[in-house]
Amino acid sequence: MKFVIIGGDAAGMSAASRAKRNDPGLEVIVLEKTQDVSYSACGMPYNIADPLREMDDLVVREAQVFREKQGIDLRTGHQVLSIDRPGKKVSGRTDSGESFQVNYDKLLIATGASPIIPDLPGFSLPGVLCLKSLEHGRRIKAHIRDYGVRVAVIIGMGYIAMEMSEALCELGIQVHMVKPRPGLLPWMHRELASTVQEELEKNGVNLYLGHEIKGIEQTARGLKVESEGVGFECQMVLTAVGIEPNSELAANAELELGPRQSISVDRSARTSDPEIYAAGDCADAFHVVTGEKTWIPLALRANRAGYTAADNVTQKKAESPAVAGTAVFKVFDLQVARTGLNLEEASSYGFDPEEIVIKGRTRAISHPGVSTMGVRMVGDKNSGLLLGVQIVAQEGAAHRINAPAVALHSKMTVEEFGRTDLAYAPPFGPVWDPMLIAANQLLNKL
Amino acid sequence: MKFVIIGGDAAGMSAASRAKRNDPGLEVIVLEKTQDVSYSACGMPYNIADPLREMDDLVVREAQVFREKQGIDLRTGHQVLSIDRPGKKVSGRTDSGESFQVNYDKLLIATGASPIIPDLPGFSLPGVLCLKSLEHGRRIKAHIRDYGVRVAVIIGMGYIAMEMSEALCELGIQVHMVKPRPGLLPWMHRELASTVQEELEKNGVNLYLGHEIKGIEQTARGLKVESEGVGFECQMVLTAVGIEPNSELAANAELELGPRQSISVDRSARTSDPEIYAAGDCADAFHVVTGEKTWIPLALRANRAGYTAADNVTQKKAESPAVAGTAVFKVFDLQVARTGLNLEEASSYGFDPEEIVIKGRTRAISHPGVSTMGVRMVGDKNSGLLLGVQIVAQEGAAHRINAPAVALHSKMTVEEFGRTDLAYAPPFGPVWDPMLIAANQLLNKL
Repeated sequence: MKFVIIGGDAAGMSAASRAKRNDPGLEVIVLEKTQDVSYSACGMPYNIADPLREMDDLVVREAQVFREKQGIDLRTGHQVLSIDRPGKKVSGRTDSGESFQVNYDKLLIATGASPIIPDLPGFSLPGVLCLKSLEHGRRIKAHIRDYGVRVAVIIGMGYIAMEMSEALCELGIQVHMVKPRPGLLPWMHRELASTVQEELEKNGVNLYLGHEIKGIEQTARGLKVESEGVGFECQMVLTAVGIEPNSELAANAELELGPRQSISVDRSARTSDPEIYAAGDCADAFHVVTGEKTWIPLALRANRAGYTAADNVTQKKAESPAVAGTAVFKVFDLQVARTGLNLEEASSYGFDPEEIVIKGRTRAISHPGVSTMGVRMVGDKNSGLLLGVQIVAQEGAAHRINAPAVALHSKMTVEEFGRTDLAYAPPFGPVWDPMLIAANQLLNKL
Repeated sequence: MKFVIIGGDAAGMSAASRAKRNDPGLEVIVLEKTQDVSYSACGMPYNIADPLREMDDLVVREAQVFREKQGIDLRTGHQVLSIDRPGKKVSGRTDSGESFQVNYDKLLIATGASPIIPDLPGFSLPGVLCLKSLEHGRRIKAHIRDYGVRVAVIIGMGYIAMEMSEALCELGIQVHMVKPRPGLLPWMHRELASTVQEELEKNGVNLYLGHEIKGIEQTARGLKVESEGVGFECQMVLTAVGIEPNSELAANAELELGPRQSISVDRSARTSDPEIYAAGDCADAFHVVTGEKTWIPLALRANRAGYTAADNVTQKKAESPAVAGTAVFKVFDLQVARTGLNLEEASSYGFDPEEIVIKGRTRAISHPGVSTMGVRMVGDKNSGLLLGVQIVAQEGAAHRINAPAVALHSKMTVEEFGRTDLAYAPPFGPVWDPMLIAANQLLNKL
């Protein structure tokens, strides 16, 4: 049997490796359009921040290891252009311009996602860059080095934009961040978002919220970003306004699509065609709180969905875990974490939500180095269920978020979560952990 | 109605405050034998480490606040010596030697725990100290200052001993730690315990495991600890071989006792006498994994049990949450955390346990500052249930332990826990969190 995988990143290579481990006799062919497979995409901002490191340090496993040690037929430089479902084959073109066709018994689409590039003048100019693939990372690194970037403009203020603002500041580059809409991190409570805003400003990042972008021009000295009311001279522009699933192949093959045009899959990672699976950033998933489809492109669930597809292809029944949308990012000296739903999301899914925002402490009150921890917690008035948590703090947010994440998986009420036995020692928190304080205060409002 | 509380520390003052809040008309009398109420006992080692701080910085709320703002009849310097259950009164003696009697309608025993002092020669010599109460802390601080302590011997190697070894080292004091039994942290997996041992030794602490103590002598130059095979000249000895519940009052009043001679209480914090409650380090609790009684003296559950007693006294039905034994301590640059049962405990409670020990990473593999995270995870072969976790790492152990703690509360299987959506970003962990790696590897053994 022939298992063909389109895309050799997190989901694709996880699936390939797992399928070969489950069934060493299986023919596994991976068609990857770039030359890069298996790298730590999330590590790129940190790598860019360090001129002494090579971008290729982020490669986790070399292509030849997959080929020679694991027996995977990994074909890099192979871009798939169409899927022929009745004929059970895919067609495409190689780097060197040759056409190819590959038959499959089972197919996995693991094509990932791409940065959204605004349809405005100048976004294809040299020096206007984005960050999703390793090649993007190499280009940014080379551009900074070769063009002596002193000023950079980041368009967008999501977590990639924030991580990159920190990376560029570390390199001594002045950073302007611009976004058309007025609110920073709109999914976050305004009080917590303002803590993030202060952190960025404290570190010298210039924020321009609510400035519509008009376009980018090449000038004699570099680039100029024109936006409503203000223009920015710079030597580099980073577009980080979000990503979108690479679902064209699937759409053209008339597979069902889900939220945000991602490829719709069932819990077994199967698309609307039972011979075709999809996994990773290109596919949707079930949300643990709502039970509904959602599109949350994150690394862990990409790996897991790859495993699920491989297990099912090799006759081991498996279901992907539902996602809680647990995520964390670092921006300068702040940790920003979330899991589950915020108030607006909860309302839109038919809950009757209530929320609390508290200022807790990261250490015992008398302990040196204690700082403030902002917590937003959302619960449902009807069922009492915990629905989501957001945390912003200088320390202890990244792993604290995992406790409510587990609570979401086990459908705990706010009251039950507030009665859990969490760890305490003065260097790590107060006797009543901020999670417990938030739960007990929220309980009074439910 | 008259609610009398014996003991004005965490459980006692939590109960007093809560009872007054629930029912401002209630007469609440607290009888505390010392002059200290409401202080952060766990903060004492860190306070001792800093000669510029006063021990009284750890007082959370002054006695007069309880008296004047909260209307609690707080009587310090009042030691209760007996409980007359048929007469519903307690008797005792004040600091100044006067006898007193107080009638009660409802009584709460919140007498805490005391350090175990070995019944060996020399343990009452000046300079032979222990650490449980604020007064103990003051004595240690004064002794170090007044006697110019250069060498200290700590007897015992539990978490108080470890925290104090770090505090004393920070003051430039040479520390010898001695214990009669051979194993360091016997509740921990040997591999993880050896990481802790290396950390202590790396920081210059001299460990003498398996050395029976014979006694302590006063010498011309200070103190001498005599142990099997080796003697230690020093200027201070800290006894930290464990604590025991202060249950004599209860035992003399013929109340039922539980594990380790702690006062037996039901989920409402009620003793075998329905008019008498007990809470805090002197009382037992239900374990969330075993459902059986246990004695785990920790701050959070002391506060909670105080609230439970107060709620029930004021006609608000309440039950104390079960405990998971979640705990963390810091020793030099290590964080040591646990929740639930270890392999031996699980066996003794009738489980058929299996365990895994893994070396995970605290950050993404390519991220600067990444270090090793040791994880022990225990599950039950019969039910598949998660039973307990231990973590030792330079960072990220303290809050990571809360995720499995929540899983224990919701009776998750190892498989379910291994499918939870935990946060990932390179500065805070690998894509597959060490908790998930451990769960997935343990699952293969169950």
